[in-house]
Amino acid sequence: MSRLLSQLAETAEKVNRFIDEVVDLESEPTLLYQAAHHIIDAGGKRLRPYLALKSCKLVGGRDEDALPTAAALELLHTFTLIHDDIIDEDEKRRGLPTVHIEWGMPTAIVTGDLLFAKVYETVTKFTDPRRVSPKRILQVLKNVSEATVTICEGQILDMMFERKETVSEDQYFRMIRAKTAALFETSARCGGILGGAKKREVERLGRYGHYAGVAFQLIDDVLGLTADEKALGKPVGSDIREGKRTLIIVHALEHASESQRKKILETLGNRSASLERIREVVGLVGSLGSISYAEEKAKKYIEKSKKALASFPASEDREDLISLADLVFARKY
Amino acid sequence: MSRLLSQLAETAEKVNRFIDEVVDLESEPTLLYQAAHHIIDAGGKRLRPYLALKSCKLVGGRDEDALPTAAALELLHTFTLIHDDIIDEDEKRRGLPTVHIEWGMPTAIVTGDLLFAKVYETVTKFTDPRRVSPKRILQVLKNVSEATVTICEGQILDMMFERKETVSEDQYFRMIRAKTAALFETSARCGGILGGAKKREVERLGRYGHYAGVAFQLIDDVLGLTADEKALGKPVGSDIREGKRTLIIVHALEHASESQRKKILETLGNRSASLERIREVVGLVGSLGSISYAEEKAKKYIEKSKKALASFPASEDREDLISLADLVFARKY
Repeated sequence: MSRLLSQLAETAEKVNRFIDEVVDLESEPTLLYQAAHHIIDAGGKRLRPYLALKSCKLVGGRDEDALPTAAALELLHTFTLIHDDIIDEDEKRRGLPTVHIEWGMPTAIVTGDLLFAKVYETVTKFTDPRRVSPKRILQVLKNVSEATVTICEGQILDMMFERKETVSEDQYFRMIRAKTAALFETSARCGGILGGAKKREVERLGRYGHYAGVAFQLIDDVLGLTADEKALGKPVGSDIREGKRTLIIVHALEHASESQRKKILETLGNRSASLERIREVVGLVGSLGSISYAEEKAKKYIEKSKKALASFPASEDREDLISLADLVFARKY
Repeated sequence: MSRLLSQLAETAEKVNRFIDEVVDLESEPTLLYQAAHHIIDAGGKRLRPYLALKSCKLVGGRDEDALPTAAALELLHTFTLIHDDIIDEDEKRRGLPTVHIEWGMPTAIVTGDLLFAKVYETVTKFTDPRRVSPKRILQVLKNVSEATVTICEGQILDMMFERKETVSEDQYFRMIRAKTAALFETSARCGGILGGAKKREVERLGRYGHYAGVAFQLIDDVLGLTADEKALGKPVGSDIREGKRTLIIVHALEHASESQRKKILETLGNRSASLERIREVVGLVGSLGSISYAEEKAKKYIEKSKKALASFPASEDREDLISLADLVFARKY
């Protein structure tokens, strides 16, 4: 694991340096570029870039061939975070005020749009067509675009579920596959494509990324209730205050008594619920076994994720991707 | 001109049919795709697609080679309209309630994002690489991305100007070059690229589109004060109520007496200004010569635009592009 952590730190440094070039803080209007850097510079694990770079290496490609796309995937992720924060009315992200809190909603919308445009600018401008064929670069762009369409669909489902009385487990998984897993899947696929992978290998990498992404979201939901605010970078229980239908809530509502169900539903979506009230509900869903249920599900997806790598020949890079899946499960923030 | 109008109608039909395929109303979640179609189906002149298709033909390309990009440019334009309407708090567009009024702000944000993602999906999925080389398709995507970055920069300038005491003519032109002309420029450039144009020809087409775009915005500003609400599809004088610094306002503030200046500034940015008050200000800026000043400037840009086509050999297609420039100036809505 310590090998993985140092690799992640290396990736972060490399990707950050690249982003500094393509989203240049010296550009004008200054306030737009400052807003664009705000969430990026506040940290983040750079998991999606790592996935892309490592998948590229696994199939015999070179880091520099996937680096522009790796950076672009982080820009894409950041764009979705900025727009999501407006939609969810979140006030903190990575320990800082969100972009719309700091610069206002109109600027936050445009900042997200800018980063999204930069995704394509970065890939088309910096991927070397002498090393990666234009045909493969186009495939990458197609994958990224389709993933973004899927993310938008997932985002709408997420919003619709907040207003629904009952959300089933199937519906929950459909939503997070779209909202979260699609980008993990695409990151791994794009790395493979850029590294010259065969179609079958790209599919396998996609499966690996997809399942890891599902597990990532499940653990994210758990940490949102159980981690402390400092590690989380935002208030504990935001999901509950916003009425999010996480698997934990879906499971709890299915297994609660009438009075417990009432208690949960009263707190769910109540933006002014006190921390005490949130803690009570967290205790309740914990006692119903809903938190461990989500963790067990995550564990299963991690296993599926690793299994998708089984037919690649053993290598250090394959081991690293396996470690990454383990980290997705074991992470504390 | 009647030849041009029937061509525009034909283009609209062709492009609309293509958009119906790539933004499929049968997709789920239904509400997202309905919202995505709302502004598209409400009309619009499809000038950007026409520019792309005609520029492609001018350099010897075929319509079908540019059609996916032509449709994508309309999607891109629509995405910016939807986000702009949120930012400007506009309630009507093309005679209908805006997307955020009809579906709420969160859905409107995601709808814009979806259409933006569809831009790239459309080009990468439907441009035939046996007819247009992947290298040229990548060039198109690079152009589109850079234009969108520029549009975002222009949008921020537009917003900043609303809060500024003084905006110069230079600043105004810098803003509309970014916010409006960049996409006209790119539409013509992309058409050229897809039609197999030489670099020099692409530059010329870009200049043509750019100047036509500047004129388009100038006339847009004029019509926003002088057309009637029905033709406009939104309330007359919205620009004034929103505090927009159009060339008309910039010119009027420079030439007004102290008391006239005070009157204009009191109305500018006053969202609840009455129609009577708006009419008074329109009369005032008219009497200062500011409306005809903007029209004269537009006329000059139309001339520059046509001049950029001079070194292409005479042809029906060149004549059509010249007619288009004339229409940009002569249009009544």
